[in-house]
Amino acid sequence: MPIYNPPLRDMQFVLHEVLHVAEELKALPAHAETDAETINAVIEEAGKFAAEVTFPLNISGDEEGCVLDKTTHEVKAPKGFKEAYAQFVEGGWPALSCDPQFGGQGLPFVVNQCLYEMLNSANQAWTMYPGLSHGAYEALVAHGTDAQKKTYLPKLTSGEWTGTMCLTEPHCGTDLGMLRTKAEPMADGNYKLTGNKIFISAGEHDMAANIIHLVLARLPDAPKGSKGISLFAVPKFIVKDDGSLGERNPIYCGGLEHKMGIHGNATAQIVIDGAVGSLVGQPHKGLAAMFVMMNAARLGVGNQSLGLTEVAYQNALAYARDRIQMRSLTGPKAKDKDADPIIVHPDVRKMLLTAKAYAEGGRALQIFCTLLLDKEHHHPDEKVRKDSGELVALLTPIVKAFITDNGHIATNACMQVFGGHGFIKEWGMEQFTRDNRINMIYEGTNTIQSLDLLGRKVLGNNGASLKKFGKLVGALVAEEGVNEKMSEFITPVAMLGEQLTKFTTEIGFKGFQNPDEVGAAAVDYLRVAGHFVFGYLFARMAQVALREIAAGNTDPFYVAKLQTARFYFAKLFPETATLMRTARAGSKVLMDTDAALA
Amino acid sequence: MPIYNPPLRDMQFVLHEVLHVAEELKALPAHAETDAETINAVIEEAGKFAAEVTFPLNISGDEEGCVLDKTTHEVKAPKGFKEAYAQFVEGGWPALSCDPQFGGQGLPFVVNQCLYEMLNSANQAWTMYPGLSHGAYEALVAHGTDAQKKTYLPKLTSGEWTGTMCLTEPHCGTDLGMLRTKAEPMADGNYKLTGNKIFISAGEHDMAANIIHLVLARLPDAPKGSKGISLFAVPKFIVKDDGSLGERNPIYCGGLEHKMGIHGNATAQIVIDGAVGSLVGQPHKGLAAMFVMMNAARLGVGNQSLGLTEVAYQNALAYARDRIQMRSLTGPKAKDKDADPIIVHPDVRKMLLTAKAYAEGGRALQIFCTLLLDKEHHHPDEKVRKDSGELVALLTPIVKAFITDNGHIATNACMQVFGGHGFIKEWGMEQFTRDNRINMIYEGTNTIQSLDLLGRKVLGNNGASLKKFGKLVGALVAEEGVNEKMSEFITPVAMLGEQLTKFTTEIGFKGFQNPDEVGAAAVDYLRVAGHFVFGYLFARMAQVALREIAAGNTDPFYVAKLQTARFYFAKLFPETATLMRTARAGSKVLMDTDAALA
Repeated sequence: MPIYNPPLRDMQFVLHEVLHVAEELKALPAHAETDAETINAVIEEAGKFAAEVTFPLNISGDEEGCVLDKTTHEVKAPKGFKEAYAQFVEGGWPALSCDPQFGGQGLPFVVNQCLYEMLNSANQAWTMYPGLSHGAYEALVAHGTDAQKKTYLPKLTSGEWTGTMCLTEPHCGTDLGMLRTKAEPMADGNYKLTGNKIFISAGEHDMAANIIHLVLARLPDAPKGSKGISLFAVPKFIVKDDGSLGERNPIYCGGLEHKMGIHGNATAQIVIDGAVGSLVGQPHKGLAAMFVMMNAARLGVGNQSLGLTEVAYQNALAYARDRIQMRSLTGPKAKDKDADPIIVHPDVRKMLLTAKAYAEGGRALQIFCTLLLDKEHHHPDEKVRKDSGELVALLTPIVKAFITDNGHIATNACMQVFGGHGFIKEWGMEQFTRDNRINMIYEGTNTIQSLDLLGRKVLGNNGASLKKFGKLVGALVAEEGVNEKMSEFITPVAMLGEQLTKFTTEIGFKGFQNPDEVGAAAVDYLRVAGHFVFGYLFARMAQVALREIAAGNTDPFYVAKLQTARFYFAKLFPETATLMRTARAGSKVLMDTDAALA
Repeated sequence: MPIYNPPLRDMQFVLHEVLHVAEELKALPAHAETDAETINAVIEEAGKFAAEVTFPLNISGDEEGCVLDKTTHEVKAPKGFKEAYAQFVEGGWPALSCDPQFGGQGLPFVVNQCLYEMLNSANQAWTMYPGLSHGAYEALVAHGTDAQKKTYLPKLTSGEWTGTMCLTEPHCGTDLGMLRTKAEPMADGNYKLTGNKIFISAGEHDMAANIIHLVLARLPDAPKGSKGISLFAVPKFIVKDDGSLGERNPIYCGGLEHKMGIHGNATAQIVIDGAVGSLVGQPHKGLAAMFVMMNAARLGVGNQSLGLTEVAYQNALAYARDRIQMRSLTGPKAKDKDADPIIVHPDVRKMLLTAKAYAEGGRALQIFCTLLLDKEHHHPDEKVRKDSGELVALLTPIVKAFITDNGHIATNACMQVFGGHGFIKEWGMEQFTRDNRINMIYEGTNTIQSLDLLGRKVLGNNGASLKKFGKLVGALVAEEGVNEKMSEFITPVAMLGEQLTKFTTEIGFKGFQNPDEVGAAAVDYLRVAGHFVFGYLFARMAQVALREIAAGNTDPFYVAKLQTARFYFAKLFPETATLMRTARAGSKVLMDTDAALA
C-alpha cells in the first residue's frame, strides 16, 4: 500500500524562508494577523486530515468508482467518501479561505493552496468535490446578486452544499460559443433551463444536501457565438425563502462516464429538463463571469498534479531504498545483502530527482502564485493589486500546463522505478499516472493554455507582463550577480531570459504576418517560459540554502535543496535548448502536410 | 468505436521500395522463392485477420479481463479470445515463419514482422498469447534436444499449444541471478521443479490444449548468481510417448495480477509445486538459452508499441478531421460549418504528425531489423551472417526502448487530440496508452536496454558495431552527398553521427574511470542513437520519394513521405540537442545527492 507524509517542512521552506509569506501578508489588512505560527498550525492539521482521512480511500475509490441509480438519478460516491466529507465540513476546512461575511475563516489563499496540495496528494478524485465548490463560491462572490449570495454562499462556505461548473456539451468543449443549452425568462424573474451537459465533475453525488450548478446557457435574444452566453445558478433542490430545501429541480444525472482515472469522482452527464435557475451577472456576459471560476480552477488543476507528483515521488523513493536488485556499477554497496538497493543506480536517481525537482519547483510556483492572488485581492495599494493580478494572469496557463505536463513525466518516472510492480494496481503507482492524465486535458487543454499564454498574455500586451516577471529575475541578478556561488543557478536563467525576449519579439513579428506561427510555437514556448519561471524559483531556493550554509547551518535540508537545484539545472532545464529550436522551426512543416494527413 | 485499417501500402513501401526485401531474400536459399507478390498476398490476408477478427475484441477484452477459477486453477480469457485463436490456428498463422521441418511455412521473419505489427495494432493483449509461444519455439529450436523438438515443436508451430517464459520471481526481475526456483534431478533424467514465478504473461488460459512453460531454475549443485541458472521445459500436461496428453503437471496459476493495461492477457502468478520438466541446453547455461527468447521478445515488444502507435494515429487523424471546434487562426476554413475541423490547428497537426512519424520510423526500423535477422539465420556468406547478427544485437535495445518510449509519446499525443473524450473509455484512446505503458517495462526495462546498448553493445566492443551502422550512413552520404535536395535529410544525420562518435569516445574514457558515468548517460545516449537510426531511415525513405517525384510520379503518397520526413527532422530529431547536453552533464549531479534522496 502506498505511503504519504505531508511535506510540511518543504512547504514551510517556500512559505517562510523563500517567499516570506507572513511578512508579505502583514501589508494586507485582511490578513495582517496571519502569522507564521498560525499558518504552520493550520497546514499541520490539514496534513493530518489528508494523510489519515482521505488518503486511505484513494485506492478503494479508484476500484469502486461511482454508481448511478438510473431510476432515482442519484449517485453514490465510493465507500467512505461521504463520511470523509462530513468530517471535512465538521473541521471547517471548506471555509478556510472564504470571506468571514459568509461564515468563512478569512485565511489567505496561500494557506488554502497548501491544504489542497496535500488533499490532492492524498486523493485527487475526492478532493475534486470540495474543489469544484470553491470555484462556484468564487463566481458567486464576484458576480452574484445579494439574494444569490445570501441564499448560496453561507452553505457553500460551510461545505454543507457543493457546487459544479456546467460548461461542456457533447459537441463543444473548447469552443463554448457553440453551446446550445437554453434559458427562458419566467414571470418571476427566474429562468427555465433546458439542455444537455457532459463531463461535469462532481456533477451528482450523495455527499452533500444540495448541489449548486453554475450553468452556461443562452437567452432567447442571445447573439450567436461566445458573446451570447449567460451564467445561471441552478440548484439541485430549490431553496425556499426560509433557507430550507424545497422541491427537486429537474437538473439530474443522465449517466456517468467510464474514465481512465479519477474514478472516485462522478463525471456526470447532466440533463437539464426545464430546471429553474437565476441569472448570475449580466445577460450575455456569462463567459466573463465563468472565467472567475475557470482561472481559479486552472490554478487548482496545477495543484492536482503537484500533489500527485509529490506522493508518487515519496513512494518511488521508499521503493528505491528498499528494493534490492543488481549491484552498483562501481562495486557492491550493501555487502551484507544479495544485491544493492536500486537507488545506487544513476538512472533510478535521475527518475527520482526528476519527480523531486518537479514537485519542489511546482510547489514554489503554486505558492508564489497564490501569494500574488492574495495581494491582488487585498493589497491596499492599487498598483500592487494590478501588478499582482497581471502576474497571476501570466502565470496561470504556465501553472496549469507546465505543472500538469511535469506531473505526467514525474508520475510515469516514479512508476518506472517500480519496474513490473509499477504496472500492478495494488502498488498504487499506475493510479497516480492515470489520475494525472486528465489534468493535461480539462479546464482547457494544455494546447489551449499555451495559446492563452503566447497569444493573449504575452503578445496580447506586447510582452508587458512578461517584462514584469523579467524584472524580478533582473532584481535577483542584480542582487547576486557578484556572488560566484550563485552563478551556476543564475547564469542559465539570465541567458534563457535573453533568448526568450528575443524569441518573443521574433514570434510577434512572424505571427503578425501568419497567425499559425503563434499556434505552431505556443506549446514549446510555454515549456520554455515554464523553465524560465522554475529556474528563477530554483535560484531563489538555492540562494536561501547557500545563505544558511554560509551562516553555519549544518541541517542537511539545505544541502538537499542545493543538490536538487543542481540536478534541475543539469538535467531538466536544458530541455529549453531543443524547445527553442523546435519553436523556431515554424509552422510550414506542420501546415504544409495535407498529403501526409490525408 | 475505434477504427483500424491495415497500413498495407506503408508496409509495402518499406518492404519493396526502400529495403528491396524480395531482392535481398533471393540471396538466401531458404527464402529465394519468397517474391513480392507472395509477401503482399500474405500481409493482405494478415491485415484482414487483424482488422476483422481480433480488433473487435480489443475493448471488450480490456473491460472483461481474465478470470481465474481458484478451485481448478484454470483461467478463462475474455469472451471471443478462444474462438479468435482457433481461427488463427486454423489459418496457419502461428506457423508462418516457423521451420518447415516442424510443420512451419518457412516464410521469412520480415513477413511475420508485418503480421505482428497488425495484430498488435488490433489487440496487444490477445497477440501476446501467440507472441509468447513464438519465443518458446525459438528457444527450443536453438537449444532443445531432439526429443524436446519432436515433442513440442510441431504443436507450438501449429499453435495447438502455446508457450511461456517463466523468469521473474517476487524478489527478482532484472536481477535473475537471485532466483530461487529449484530443479532436482529425477531418476528418469527429468527434473522436479519447485518455486514461485510472477508476471508470467499468457501464463494460463483456455485457448490451447497445452501450455509449455520455459522455466528458469537452479540445479542442486548450481553456483550462486547468474551462472547457476538452468532452463527447463515444463508442460502444463505431461506429453505421453504417443504425443497424447497425460496427467496434469503441478505448475498452475496461483493468482492473476490486476494491471493498468493489457487486461485481456493473463499475467499469472505461477506456482510450481513439484512439476516435472526437462533440461533445455546445458546445465547452468540457462540464461544464455533464455536470451534467444529474450532477444526475440525485445524486438516483439518494440513491435507492440509500433502497432499501438499506428492504430492510435489512425483514430486521432479521423477524429481531427471530423470534430469541429473553433476557427483556424488564419480565418475560417469550413465556412459552411459552425467551426473548423480541429485538424486546421498547428498543434493538433503536430500531435498527429508526431505519431505518424514515430509509426513510420518504427516500421522502417522493425522491418530493417527483421530483414537482418533473416540474413543472420540464412545468408550463405558467413561474414554477412555475422555482420547482420552484430547489427541486430546493436539495434535490439534501440528497437525495444526507443520505439516503446515513442509509443508512450505518440499514444498520449493521440489521446490528447480527443480532448476530454480521450479520457473516456468508449473512445478507446486511453486503452492504447495503458496497453503501451507495459512495453517500457517488461522484457528488461528501458533503463536496462540503455545499459545493454551503451555498456555492452557499444563500449563492450569499442564501438565496432556502431561503426558498422555508421558505414551504412556513410554510404548514403557518399551516394547522395551531391544531391542538393537530399541535404535537408542527410546533413542532420551526418552531423549527429559525428557528435555521437565523439561522445562515444568521451563516455568510454569517463566510464573507464567511473562506471556510473555510463549509467548516468545511457538513457539519453539510447535516444540519441535512436534518432541517429531513425534519421538514417527517414533519409532513405525521402530518397525514394524524391526519386519517384523526379521521375514524374504524381502519387501524393510520395509527397506525404517527404512531408513526414521534414516534420521529423524539424520537430522530433532536434531533441538530440538536449539529450547530448544532458548526457554530457555527467553522473555527479545524480550520485552526489544523498541529502536530497534521504
